[in-house]
Amino acid sequence: MRAIVKEKRAAGLTLAEMPAPKAGPTDVLIRVKRVGLCGTDLHIYHWNAWAEGRIHPPLVIGHEFSGVVESVGSMVTGFTPGEKVTAEGHIACGVCFQCRTGLGHICRKVRIIGVDVNGAFADLIAMPAGNVWKIDPQISLDVAALHDPLGNAFHTVMSSDVRGKRVLVLGSGPIGLFCVAIARASGAARVIASEVAAPRRAMAVKMGAHRTIDPKAESVEEVVRNETDGAGADVVLEMSGNPQAIRQALKAARDGADVSLLGLPGEEVPIDVTHDVIFKGITLRGIVGRRMYDTWYQMRSFLLAGLIDPTVVITHRFAMNEVESAMEAIAAGAGKVLFNLEETRK
Amino acid sequence: MRAIVKEKRAAGLTLAEMPAPKAGPTDVLIRVKRVGLCGTDLHIYHWNAWAEGRIHPPLVIGHEFSGVVESVGSMVTGFTPGEKVTAEGHIACGVCFQCRTGLGHICRKVRIIGVDVNGAFADLIAMPAGNVWKIDPQISLDVAALHDPLGNAFHTVMSSDVRGKRVLVLGSGPIGLFCVAIARASGAARVIASEVAAPRRAMAVKMGAHRTIDPKAESVEEVVRNETDGAGADVVLEMSGNPQAIRQALKAARDGADVSLLGLPGEEVPIDVTHDVIFKGITLRGIVGRRMYDTWYQMRSFLLAGLIDPTVVITHRFAMNEVESAMEAIAAGAGKVLFNLEETRK
Amino acid sequence: MRAIVKEKRAAGLTLAEMPAPKAGPTDVLIRVKRVGLCGTDLHIYHWNAWAEGRIHPPLVIGHEFSGVVESVGSMVTGFTPGEKVTAEGHIACGVCFQCRTGLGHICRKVRIIGVDVNGAFADLIAMPAGNVWKIDPQISLDVAALHDPLGNAFHTVMSSDVRGKRVLVLGSGPIGLFCVAIARASGAARVIASEVAAPRRAMAVKMGAHRTIDPKAESVEEVVRNETDGAGADVVLEMSGNPQAIRQALKAARDGADVSLLGLPGEEVPIDVTHDVIFKGITLRGIVGRRMYDTWYQMRSFLLAGLIDPTVVITHRFAMNEVESAMEAIAAGAGKVLFNLEETRK
Amino acid sequence: MRAIVKEKRAAGLTLAEMPAPKAGPTDVLIRVKRVGLCGTDLHIYHWNAWAEGRIHPPLVIGHEFSGVVESVGSMVTGFTPGEKVTAEGHIACGVCFQCRTGLGHICRKVRIIGVDVNGAFADLIAMPAGNVWKIDPQISLDVAALHDPLGNAFHTVMSSDVRGKRVLVLGSGPIGLFCVAIARASGAARVIASEVAAPRRAMAVKMGAHRTIDPKAESVEEVVRNETDGAGADVVLEMSGNPQAIRQALKAARDGADVSLLGLPGEEVPIDVTHDVIFKGITLRGIVGRRMYDTWYQMRSFLLAGLIDPTVVITHRFAMNEVESAMEAIAAGAGKVLFNLEETRK
Repeated sequence: MRAIVKEKRAAGLTLAEMPAPKAGPTDVLIRVKRVGLCGTDLHIYHWNAWAEGRIHPPLVIGHEFSGVVESVGSMVTGFTPGEKVTAEGHIACGVCFQCRTGLGHICRKVRIIGVDVNGAFADLIAMPAGNVWKIDPQISLDVAALHDPLGNAFHTVMSSDVRGKRVLVLGSGPIGLFCVAIARASGAARVIASEVAAPRRAMAVKMGAHRTIDPKAESVEEVVRNETDGAGADVVLEMSGNPQAIRQALKAARDGADVSLLGLPGEEVPIDVTHDVIFKGITLRGIVGRRMYDTWYQMRSFLLAGLIDPTVVITHRFAMNEVESAMEAIAAGAGKVLFNLEETRK
Repeated sequence: MRAIVKEKRAAGLTLAEMPAPKAGPTDVLIRVKRVGLCGTDLHIYHWNAWAEGRIHPPLVIGHEFSGVVESVGSMVTGFTPGEKVTAEGHIACGVCFQCRTGLGHICRKVRIIGVDVNGAFADLIAMPAGNVWKIDPQISLDVAALHDPLGNAFHTVMSSDVRGKRVLVLGSGPIGLFCVAIARASGAARVIASEVAAPRRAMAVKMGAHRTIDPKAESVEEVVRNETDGAGADVVLEMSGNPQAIRQALKAARDGADVSLLGLPGEEVPIDVTHDVIFKGITLRGIVGRRMYDTWYQMRSFLLAGLIDPTVVITHRFAMNEVESAMEAIAAGAGKVLFNLEETRK
Repeated sequence: MRAIVKEKRAAGLTLAEMPAPKAGPTDVLIRVKRVGLCGTDLHIYHWNAWAEGRIHPPLVIGHEFSGVVESVGSMVTGFTPGEKVTAEGHIACGVCFQCRTGLGHICRKVRIIGVDVNGAFADLIAMPAGNVWKIDPQISLDVAALHDPLGNAFHTVMSSDVRGKRVLVLGSGPIGLFCVAIARASGAARVIASEVAAPRRAMAVKMGAHRTIDPKAESVEEVVRNETDGAGADVVLEMSGNPQAIRQALKAARDGADVSLLGLPGEEVPIDVTHDVIFKGITLRGIVGRRMYDTWYQMRSFLLAGLIDPTVVITHRFAMNEVESAMEAIAAGAGKVLFNLEETRK
Repeated sequence: MRAIVKEKRAAGLTLAEMPAPKAGPTDVLIRVKRVGLCGTDLHIYHWNAWAEGRIHPPLVIGHEFSGVVESVGSMVTGFTPGEKVTAEGHIACGVCFQCRTGLGHICRKVRIIGVDVNGAFADLIAMPAGNVWKIDPQISLDVAALHDPLGNAFHTVMSSDVRGKRVLVLGSGPIGLFCVAIARASGAARVIASEVAAPRRAMAVKMGAHRTIDPKAESVEEVVRNETDGAGADVVLEMSGNPQAIRQALKAARDGADVSLLGLPGEEVPIDVTHDVIFKGITLRGIVGRRMYDTWYQMRSFLLAGLIDPTVVITHRFAMNEVESAMEAIAAGAGKVLFNLEETRK
């Protein structure tokens, strides 16, 4: 089968022929139709410090995908060949304390597809049946392929009560953009999106942001205070991972606010714990992955009810032999980049 | 009346004669019997940077106290002269969003006795009736005078569910020591106390700690992991304000842990947000003051049921003319220092 | 001043001249502009068993109102004559355990205007300043007069997380109708409204219900199961007080559902505790009044953001001398009946 | 192997020879050492209406047990022959909404051992590995065999915050008695136990109850009000299933109380919803089974920390050929009746 592979411990990715994955008795074999590119893939492509420490080539990359069931293992029930599916890409151990008390998304022994084990950027992928998520016929393969980052956004927004609240979202990459839409659909009174890239700010407005901020041009804290009668934001969602944005998140939060952090800074962040956390009585949450499987049911419900349209964030589409072009698009500030494995371009 | 007063913008405190406070129609006038000294009073005494920015002499200091009702304002009901009382020293505005939604402890317009307005280190203090807290006859004036820091500890412990949990308490000053006892009384399975001062570690054991750590001699994270099958602490309470301890708090927390911060660091703290907050799925809470008045009811209930004995932390007692000796005792690492205003020593 | 008065212990209400209320130093005197009629007023009019046990004539009725500040007591700050206001009609004692721990809405010593003390159906009413709620200039006097029942609905809906959920609302009187709109604005995936009166079912659709049920013609449980893949409703809001509807509420709830009860049955309700509560793992909440003042801030926020339009439920408007006509309208199945005290009809 | 079997659709139980259970690749085969008798077993013995509707003979009864691992299936990891174990007797489907969102204890397709499938009252039982719970060497086989009812009690108590609260427990059978001990260990300020049988009231005192009530001799509501300054109990745990006790539970609860119901009434219970649920602002929870596996970790933690001693409730021990005597003991008001399968009496 075709696959996009990290072949050696250096920058780059290769379109290569690989043997099809072996699917065990508890697995579902999936024919991949769409694959999304994510910042993680970019890190692997560029072979940054994190990639160097975590990735063991050769590895098929890719963890955002959709496809159809190709075949099911002998012990699997509930799936039929031809069904549209996507999957939770975090394969949790299932037996640790976290896994058995509703915290599988922070399982210490988690293996992530496209990172720790072969991923979805290939014609076929084998997934444990428990990770495979059926997609309703009325939902497109494109939307199905967005479930991984969309689930990050749902996990983040659903961690706080945003009903009637003023919500600040820092970072308008795809996940931040999803947060804007989910917050609006969940009854947020006012959504403010901070983002350096102008095209992404424009998308934030499309997703429902009442006000956008260019943090290079305006003070995030000042704008937020102006927009909230001086109080600060009730709920803050930090999706950028930028250390400065994390500090702004706390400064712009009102006393007693909920602050959720999903964006991953690459360095330690100096925090004014006394004034920005303790005196304010802040509740701060680290958010990672998707709740298994509460988040997935929430996504299904919002999508089937038509409460959000995640396709707005898709800005580029490529064929499998266009990885280099995709990387260029991302470097130039794309929204979500989606690969269609069903077509090949010359 | 006698009072301990910050007379000018410089180090030192003076025992002086002051006019008795004026009590309005909604106030209760209290004859003070016991006053506790706290780190805040020490800062005012030494006139550190914080004091310089906040304190406007002349000011009667003191916010931890007990006494008896001297007289009640014309509009006050429910109090009778002679009744034993203490008071919530944070006078919240009562009309802001925080005050009207159960978050009065983070009211932005709060005035704190002994800091923003004249305090309790005097023969008499006038308090708004709503802040005065009746003390059951069976509770001593000593215990009554501990309600302010004891309430900080209750607020901190009660913010997490400690039942059956492994709890790490960093800092064994009086508030940290109270936390140890409250956690034990609330069903914590194991309480580990980290503290640099040996006498305080001994008190932590008296309060119920299963294991103490001298962070100068041992690695907090290592000990906690050894004591928790490698998992880390389920609940972490940071009471020291030491930047290093705040970092240890996050390192020693298990994935999915609750971390509460009450100790106030004097500088920004560099935090490894990615590994210590986000990947771990930590919930971090800034804790300040006491819930008005949930915390007070909890204290009353625990004290009347005999579930904790807070007097263990009292290590020194002084008369009103012994402020200098008290300051020396604190500098030498005392537990709680209590003044008895009913006696004068030569 | 003019007032609608229950003059004696018998059916009926009288338009009478009454002395203006005395406003104390902590009160706000309000010139009433709009008054809504509620089921409670109807009970007082008809002098039913409840009224007989609770009401002590002579009494000015009315608790849903809006108006403008006429004058403020000497100790009141924050209000200016001419400002548009409404008020929380439950005057809580302020000093009991419930009042001091965020549960003022269930204060045992509560006095309700128009029930326990003179109410709003008069040219003037004096209210404790703490109960008076300022209305933003852009919000109409009509909407302001709906805050009491609208607050009941907010309290009910906000007690559960409805985001992405299937919500069943039983009873489409004004409060039930508000629930439909609030649930929709808060991200409910599907809202089903059960109501016997056809005009109210039509209003439920206007408020956003996806499906209505006539419980005389269809089985509530059956329809709900059909609409929810057999699972039952995730969240059930019982607003009718009908004993049969309360039983349906539990039958139509899915395993693990949240069921909130606000409608007051006039008799004991036989409940299949084993199958409908325990085996299902139901969480059932009794809801009364409005959270003081969390609910009020939520209302302000939703109204200013334009997330709901409560005026849809207003079906009738009357002048002060038309009480009898209003009672007839209600008996005939009106939505909300509003009196305009600024006009008199011949 | 030996087994206690319901052989036909009539009263009685038989000690019979049965073929050993077949253990699949994902199962653990357990040699049973201790079995507890429970009310459910009694219903099956007496062949009451519930049993008639649910039980399909021939069936091996028994769901409270402990033993040692005999052998493990080919796909099972983490268990070794000879290890001490017990098991969660509710075999949930694992794939429904409830199972995948932390509500496996209310899985609609649950199969219960000893009820829906062959149970533990036999020399051997095969259990899915996911249901098997390893017992620490320092915990006895007796205590291990109590995990099922002890888990019911933990699930009930842990559903409310009992720290510093006045707790009323209705019914002092084994589960109610466990609740008394767990509430005490979790910081309850006062525990009141209501129970008709004098020996059980004596056990309640041993478990830590501050006050017991004989509901035949005293008014539960009156005693509770006397013990709580007239307020009522903060937390009420109904463990008896007696309809009258369920009504008392609501009457004796304070405004704003948490009421948990675990005892299963055999008939509909008339409830004064208006006064006892809505006006009081009660939160009522139906409790069934044990949280999978939060409850189990809590049990392990409390037991290893020595916070409770559940063996106090064991009043009778029998050999496998003494079922009739055991039934007589239960009818005469025993505490927990435990069978030791390692011994046979003549």
